[in-house]
Amino acid sequence: MIIKIENNTNFSTIKSYLESLHLEVHLIHKKNNRYIVISGDERPINMNYLCSIIGNSKIITDFSPYYFSSREFQKEDTIIEVKNFKVGGGNFSYIAGPCTIENENDLIETGRLISKYGATLFRAGAFKPRTSPYNFQGWGREGIKLLHSVGQKLNMPVITEVLNPEDVLWMEPYIDVFQVGTRNMTNTALLKELGKTNKPVLLKRNFAVGIEDWIKAAEFVIVYGNSNVMLCERGIQGVDNYNRFVLDLAAVSAAKQLTHLPVIVDPSHATGRPELIPSMVSAAIVAGADGIIVETHIDPSKMLVPGDGPQALLPHQFNKIVEDNKPLLKLLQKKLCL
Amino acid sequence: MIIKIENNTNFSTIKSYLESLHLEVHLIHKKNNRYIVISGDERPINMNYLCSIIGNSKIITDFSPYYFSSREFQKEDTIIEVKNFKVGGGNFSYIAGPCTIENENDLIETGRLISKYGATLFRAGAFKPRTSPYNFQGWGREGIKLLHSVGQKLNMPVITEVLNPEDVLWMEPYIDVFQVGTRNMTNTALLKELGKTNKPVLLKRNFAVGIEDWIKAAEFVIVYGNSNVMLCERGIQGVDNYNRFVLDLAAVSAAKQLTHLPVIVDPSHATGRPELIPSMVSAAIVAGADGIIVETHIDPSKMLVPGDGPQALLPHQFNKIVEDNKPLLKLLQKKLCL
Amino acid sequence: MIIKIENNTNFSTIKSYLESLHLEVHLIHKKNNRYIVISGDERPINMNYLCSIIGNSKIITDFSPYYFSSREFQKEDTIIEVKNFKVGGGNFSYIAGPCTIENENDLIETGRLISKYGATLFRAGAFKPRTSPYNFQGWGREGIKLLHSVGQKLNMPVITEVLNPEDVLWMEPYIDVFQVGTRNMTNTALLKELGKTNKPVLLKRNFAVGIEDWIKAAEFVIVYGNSNVMLCERGIQGVDNYNRFVLDLAAVSAAKQLTHLPVIVDPSHATGRPELIPSMVSAAIVAGADGIIVETHIDPSKMLVPGDGPQALLPHQFNKIVEDNKPLLKLLQKKLCL
Amino acid sequence: MIIKIENNTNFSTIKSYLESLHLEVHLIHKKNNRYIVISGDERPINMNYLCSIIGNSKIITDFSPYYFSSREFQKEDTIIEVKNFKVGGGNFSYIAGPCTIENENDLIETGRLISKYGATLFRAGAFKPRTSPYNFQGWGREGIKLLHSVGQKLNMPVITEVLNPEDVLWMEPYIDVFQVGTRNMTNTALLKELGKTNKPVLLKRNFAVGIEDWIKAAEFVIVYGNSNVMLCERGIQGVDNYNRFVLDLAAVSAAKQLTHLPVIVDPSHATGRPELIPSMVSAAIVAGADGIIVETHIDPSKMLVPGDGPQALLPHQFNKIVEDNKPLLKLLQKKLCL
Repeated sequence: MIIKIENNTNFSTIKSYLESLHLEVHLIHKKNNRYIVISGDERPINMNYLCSIIGNSKIITDFSPYYFSSREFQKEDTIIEVKNFKVGGGNFSYIAGPCTIENENDLIETGRLISKYGATLFRAGAFKPRTSPYNFQGWGREGIKLLHSVGQKLNMPVITEVLNPEDVLWMEPYIDVFQVGTRNMTNTALLKELGKTNKPVLLKRNFAVGIEDWIKAAEFVIVYGNSNVMLCERGIQGVDNYNRFVLDLAAVSAAKQLTHLPVIVDPSHATGRPELIPSMVSAAIVAGADGIIVETHIDPSKMLVPGDGPQALLPHQFNKIVEDNKPLLKLLQKKLCL
Repeated sequence: MIIKIENNTNFSTIKSYLESLHLEVHLIHKKNNRYIVISGDERPINMNYLCSIIGNSKIITDFSPYYFSSREFQKEDTIIEVKNFKVGGGNFSYIAGPCTIENENDLIETGRLISKYGATLFRAGAFKPRTSPYNFQGWGREGIKLLHSVGQKLNMPVITEVLNPEDVLWMEPYIDVFQVGTRNMTNTALLKELGKTNKPVLLKRNFAVGIEDWIKAAEFVIVYGNSNVMLCERGIQGVDNYNRFVLDLAAVSAAKQLTHLPVIVDPSHATGRPELIPSMVSAAIVAGADGIIVETHIDPSKMLVPGDGPQALLPHQFNKIVEDNKPLLKLLQKKLCL
Repeated sequence: MIIKIENNTNFSTIKSYLESLHLEVHLIHKKNNRYIVISGDERPINMNYLCSIIGNSKIITDFSPYYFSSREFQKEDTIIEVKNFKVGGGNFSYIAGPCTIENENDLIETGRLISKYGATLFRAGAFKPRTSPYNFQGWGREGIKLLHSVGQKLNMPVITEVLNPEDVLWMEPYIDVFQVGTRNMTNTALLKELGKTNKPVLLKRNFAVGIEDWIKAAEFVIVYGNSNVMLCERGIQGVDNYNRFVLDLAAVSAAKQLTHLPVIVDPSHATGRPELIPSMVSAAIVAGADGIIVETHIDPSKMLVPGDGPQALLPHQFNKIVEDNKPLLKLLQKKLCL
Repeated sequence: MIIKIENNTNFSTIKSYLESLHLEVHLIHKKNNRYIVISGDERPINMNYLCSIIGNSKIITDFSPYYFSSREFQKEDTIIEVKNFKVGGGNFSYIAGPCTIENENDLIETGRLISKYGATLFRAGAFKPRTSPYNFQGWGREGIKLLHSVGQKLNMPVITEVLNPEDVLWMEPYIDVFQVGTRNMTNTALLKELGKTNKPVLLKRNFAVGIEDWIKAAEFVIVYGNSNVMLCERGIQGVDNYNRFVLDLAAVSAAKQLTHLPVIVDPSHATGRPELIPSMVSAAIVAGADGIIVETHIDPSKMLVPGDGPQALLPHQFNKIVEDNKPLLKLLQKKLCL
């Protein structure tokens, strides 16, 4: 149940009543309105009593499972500000950087080049979700601090993956955008915790879930308090081993139609093949993407996470992609963030 | 084994010898050269003897499973001529029409409009592969003749699906392009029979096979004698019920890199949603497609195959797609076939 | 539409009328009743006129897409007789043999051993569906004749795959059961042709289609005239490369509940791993299978189709499986065909 | 890298050295031996120096990514003790209970009946992973305490799902087995935290990952310190909507061959159909499962999580399953835990 609050409504009375019934109650501010979102077993609610205490507020019972994310709720694109640039609403951004934070020199050198070539947000991983415990799990806290300091030096905002809900709070001052990886899209404990920050969240689609479940995961973050969610398509399971995953560009287009959230595309993890990244960047732009996230590295042969080497672009390859797509963005009247 | 024949080689001697060993022997003309392709159990071949009878001809033993389709074999794009227009090599074509041949009037009216709006090849099905025997299976032979006559009236070449190898021979004079549907891509008896015609073949990818198996199916047609094969991506199984299938545009790009064959994209069957077709047409163009095949119908509500109704475009929607993509084709320096 | 014919009904009048409307009309005998099955565009039927000519016959309009296969239509198990043994209805059969017919000696020796160890139907392939045209496609007609002759010598009925509708007629006298492979389950031209024989058909499930579409494929064969259909589960696409496919035993159980047809299980192609075949045979028995089809070979290292080598059982391994499962069959009161 | 420690080895010296290189170091006791497991970037290790400080200890460099879980490491089955009963090693257990903790009365009544009928471990969820934030997320902490108290009253150990790493520590005294759900199998932060408890962990397979990645997830828990891991197969994504998922019994058999860990099967979530649960329980037993986990409820129509209603068994249906499978367990010489 959602209640759209009118001015004369006493929120705390409603909250007390609902919580006395063991319901979870969220207060959400969206588009100059306030909403109470209720989740839990609604059967014990005495509707007569509830109506008597909500005043002119309106009870919404028939709503989509991604109500606040939907175009029905908000027609215009959400524009998310990340320091000095904007994501969504006709702006187009490149996010780039190495998969893993390895050492300061390579990080600075990669960042310096991709910034020069057109990336506005610097990505690098400190917490790596690996399938085997014997693999390198990333530099952790130390890595986060290093990324922060490199971002400061380069004057670039930074994005990095968070795996553990307990890391959200302390990481917040160090990073500009939280990334939720494909393996954690269904980690509701993490999504809820990210709802409590005000830093933007880039939410990768799980490689095995449908479009609408992906949007519902975004809705989790929003309902728990953080409206700054960007969706990220990074490929789903296909029928093939030629590419690592199948880049689902119809899902990008569908997500743009169904929601007002920015949608970013990751062709690196989707294809795992540098020779397919350029065409997939262009196709993603045309399909409606608001930005691209790609892996770049100054020397892929030195990478610590072996599987990621082949898919990383060299900085000059990244440069070529940015340049080659300028006419396309111009044709589509998209503004490149620089 | 493949043998590249030199002038002084006596083909019939080689053929006799190999066939005496129960091997299948194909003679293929490609790029001013002749090749002998051998399939079967090669162990009984006496290599010394074979070498003694092939003269200067060259035995190729280490080759890709889609040798003649590959860019290694032929760098430049294959261009397939369908009556008055060309597919591949920088030409871009729209193929359109109803899923099913229903009646002459609707067929002519649909054909007249899509031809006016930019389609150069008219599609309609007379043999429908259905999952249930109780469903309408198409008008069959009668439908093929009707399609032929409508094509003549409209001065448009026609494409239609063939299901049964025994239909290939008699259908040949009536149609301009044979279509192999997703459920028959693995039907090697059909592929072999299509190798014996010289009419082009549009080979849809099976919704559950990988990119390279799709190309190997094309190789079947080529090895059995017909080089005029166009690949067609029409969506693979995904993780979702939102779209009917997942349009795999990275496969389009990969197929363009791996082979010299034209690649056509079918966004109608892939998405099953008219609202996603326009963006997927543009994305397909950018991903490297040489053409688009879409379902169009003057009145989808009257369609005989119910599931196909929702995905069919009205002629004016098709018109809009053609017009909207002209700047994009111009940007990519693709020549629209008209 | 289905019409259940009563005695006083004049079938030829009905047929003439329906065919004049371009409908396909099938006459089916099932359980001492006759049925007219109509497929096509039923809208032109004048129901008043139809009712006037069908006498007491009953029009069935609301029926499952696999009506004649369903338990609603026939409660008791269908029992199919293959020469001297029975499939279904509490009988349990082992089908075994090499994937491919290679040479007479190996064929006889394999057949002799598996017959001794408990197989009642001998399998071997003469037409091999391969993904690449360069691969060995099987011995073809010659292979069929060899299999027939070996079957005669061993006094064992034989089963082999058919790929091309035009092969059905001439193969009929040489073989005892037709096999439809996973890649041809959706080949409706082949299914229709098999409807015209009276030899049993073992219909493998396509590795990418659902349970009900598999049963609808069986319904095709039945509606076109042949009720002797055995379903065969052989694994579907999963999420994994550990096994070749995922053996879907819940589908076996579901097929037994939904239909009265025998269900056979192929653990060889499903797993591709001999070490998993014994447990999967037992699990299939418990899940309700009426028989097992396994690959066996006296020397897997010599096999012509390389991928099949690793999954083939040696005759003594097959023997052990048959012996080990006797107590289980006894517990379930299944009668082993010997 | 793994180092098998000999008595004369000074662990703290090794640890200090490795941690000075920013490596993660775990000390593991297994089978009367101690092992140092190292994860991270091993390139800076000075092997000469390391060898000089490890004494007689043995460096293992070539090991499977699930070394401690593997049969190579430990031949005999791991037997996990849960209060008064044993899992694995020829013991067979039924785990049952409602999907969700709803109210004390239903919980007690369900628990009382299933205990009487043969369940030895009581399952119920307090933290529910839902796809939409508007859905009931479970009773949370309050639910855990209720489950604990009901378990005490019934004298039954309890199992429940944990979603958030921060919940592991406080939940430990209240529950007997931690369950990791399919959506959290890839949640490495949670797996690591569970490594720090000594309570057994039931680790469900993610519905979209392969067999070996599932075992690697178990290895995470073991390497971080907790050897009491039971694997649980609960169905993977298939090609079908008939069943919710595809129960992968070959994976059960494979897991029993590859590892020494107990394997539990969940036919409720796999099929979503009560009519398929009985046959799948039997098939799972035959495939090698050490136990079954099923949903049971005294009144499925009242369930708070609607999708779960249809798949829940009534207590008397559970009773029938337990009774019907006794002869099968006897035949396989498995000891039913009661």
